[in-house]
Amino acid sequence: MSNTIRVIQYGLGPIGCATARLVDERDDLDLVGAVDIDPAKVGRDVGLLIGLHHELGVRIERELAAVGRPADVVLHTTNSFFDLFTDQVLGILAAGFDVVSTSEELSFPWLEDPDQAARIDAAARAAGRTVLGTGVNPGFLMDTLPLCMTSIMQRVDHVSVLRVINASKRRGPFQAKIGAGMTVDEFRSRMAGGRMGHVGLIQSTTMIFDTLGKKLVRFENTVEPVVAEKPVRTEFFDVAPGRVRGLHQVGRAYADDGEFVGLTFRAALDEEPDGDTIRITGLPDLTVTLRGTNGDLATVAMAVNAIRRTREAAPGLLTMRDLPIVTGTAAPARRAVERGGAQDVESGGSP
Amino acid sequence: MSNTIRVIQYGLGPIGCATARLVDERDDLDLVGAVDIDPAKVGRDVGLLIGLHHELGVRIERELAAVGRPADVVLHTTNSFFDLFTDQVLGILAAGFDVVSTSEELSFPWLEDPDQAARIDAAARAAGRTVLGTGVNPGFLMDTLPLCMTSIMQRVDHVSVLRVINASKRRGPFQAKIGAGMTVDEFRSRMAGGRMGHVGLIQSTTMIFDTLGKKLVRFENTVEPVVAEKPVRTEFFDVAPGRVRGLHQVGRAYADDGEFVGLTFRAALDEEPDGDTIRITGLPDLTVTLRGTNGDLATVAMAVNAIRRTREAAPGLLTMRDLPIVTGTAAPARRAVERGGAQDVESGGSP
Repeated sequence: MSNTIRVIQYGLGPIGCATARLVDERDDLDLVGAVDIDPAKVGRDVGLLIGLHHELGVRIERELAAVGRPADVVLHTTNSFFDLFTDQVLGILAAGFDVVSTSEELSFPWLEDPDQAARIDAAARAAGRTVLGTGVNPGFLMDTLPLCMTSIMQRVDHVSVLRVINASKRRGPFQAKIGAGMTVDEFRSRMAGGRMGHVGLIQSTTMIFDTLGKKLVRFENTVEPVVAEKPVRTEFFDVAPGRVRGLHQVGRAYADDGEFVGLTFRAALDEEPDGDTIRITGLPDLTVTLRGTNGDLATVAMAVNAIRRTREAAPGLLTMRDLPIVTGTAAPARRAVERGGAQDVESGGSP
Repeated sequence: MSNTIRVIQYGLGPIGCATARLVDERDDLDLVGAVDIDPAKVGRDVGLLIGLHHELGVRIERELAAVGRPADVVLHTTNSFFDLFTDQVLGILAAGFDVVSTSEELSFPWLEDPDQAARIDAAARAAGRTVLGTGVNPGFLMDTLPLCMTSIMQRVDHVSVLRVINASKRRGPFQAKIGAGMTVDEFRSRMAGGRMGHVGLIQSTTMIFDTLGKKLVRFENTVEPVVAEKPVRTEFFDVAPGRVRGLHQVGRAYADDGEFVGLTFRAALDEEPDGDTIRITGLPDLTVTLRGTNGDLATVAMAVNAIRRTREAAPGLLTMRDLPIVTGTAAPARRAVERGGAQDVESGGSP
């Protein structure tokens, strides 16, 4: 099919395996390469790794340069932080490919990491290529979707989003990431170490401020443990009363005239009901509630669905507010019946 | 301000008066002209007509050509149907302006009115100008927003939207339009005349089919009266039991493999609770519920909010799926305190 987009999967963790599988299922996309640093993966055929029952004739390479086939886009799913992914993205651009990335800090870097953003933007323009940072959160639920809703408002006074995830339905690594089973002291010392909690609130916040024309003067981020009051048991954890069953994170962002954005991320075992609530006050006041926005399924979908719009876009570093609406497809999965056992996405995944 | 967009308001019915008022309130927009065919309006200053307590120095003209000041965009709010608005839009393009229109048939004309769409598209390209069809419904709730939601889905099997409006909260003309107070026989004979019911279901449907890659093979549209079981009284109507208090309209759209889209529009007096529900099945299944999407406020907001994106877009006839996300603004209303008595939008308005 002449309209087919050739995709290289870069990063084969749980999310990368799932995006590769979805690319393989899509008639309009062709999986032509795969890259991962894990020595246990390099050299294998990607088809078996991602849960198909057959090889795809695509060898997993240690380096992008070793991918022998021509391609259009690199689907980049490695890590969250600029200091870890910048060189990867610059390398992909230097090789001449567009980039769709799920790295959280790339979802809206213009205010929080302006130098890094400018560097990648300049490299993309120089290469005549496009880089998109996307995902479900950040990238959609707490930023793009609330912004879309403001299209039917005459005036916006305040934006709040509450995301509640029942982590009992998620896999072990996600449960571990939110502190399940820790003592409160362990939780707080991990917190102090800096890498506990959801990555993305400041990106979502700054996208909203910048797009709606507000000036951010202060951002407060708090992460608190959610403590079990009764025993909680999952496939992976036994949490005694008094121990941690999850986390409750709040980002509050202020303009000169008071709080303008409040984002709450709550993920805990046995947390019911889960779902998302967007409240935007102004003229009119809007309330939007969502059920079913599974973080792993959704991030994988968004990354793959965004490929075509990224290909069509002008060169540079883009965020979701810059693209025409990204949509899914009704096209039937080409090889769904051949799919192997990796139906669920393993976590590590996205909130 | 150099970035200010100069706007001519074309059509000064209830929606046009409200859009003109919002343009006047916005710091980034400047109301520089106004056009209406009503002899009672022509020659007056638009400021007083739209409910301000002061003149704006903008005379309402019978013809666009009589507007003396330079402008960028025409905000077109006249009527729903191609046979009534095509010449207006072609005239605006010939005069060299971009167009943002709330005409329902323009919201997605590519499948339902392809010849008309092609004619306007060609004229826009020839003039180097952009035409956007927009609004809240069609234009957002039953098409753009569900399409946005599919961005986080790996596969879309079926899209349904239910919009329920409690017409008791709306003005007399809207209540009349949905049949309030009629006998069931009167309702059915008005129906047979063809212009009863919401305009836009086929446009929303075709936007969804076309965007998600489905082929529409059949569309069914039914409109039924909602009959009062007990007396209903509003400021404008006294409805006896057995008479009509509103309408219930369903559009069902089929692909080769069955129903793919189902849209339900229900507007009636004393209808509670009101709100919107979007259900999309696939992977994952999503449910989105909305409260507060007031049709008149929302259409006015969308039309004005879409102006900047329309200015920035490439020439041609565009729909909401073609633009980067349209958003509102947090900017305070410049002259809100001077606003006159026309705070509410009079209906006739948009569903």
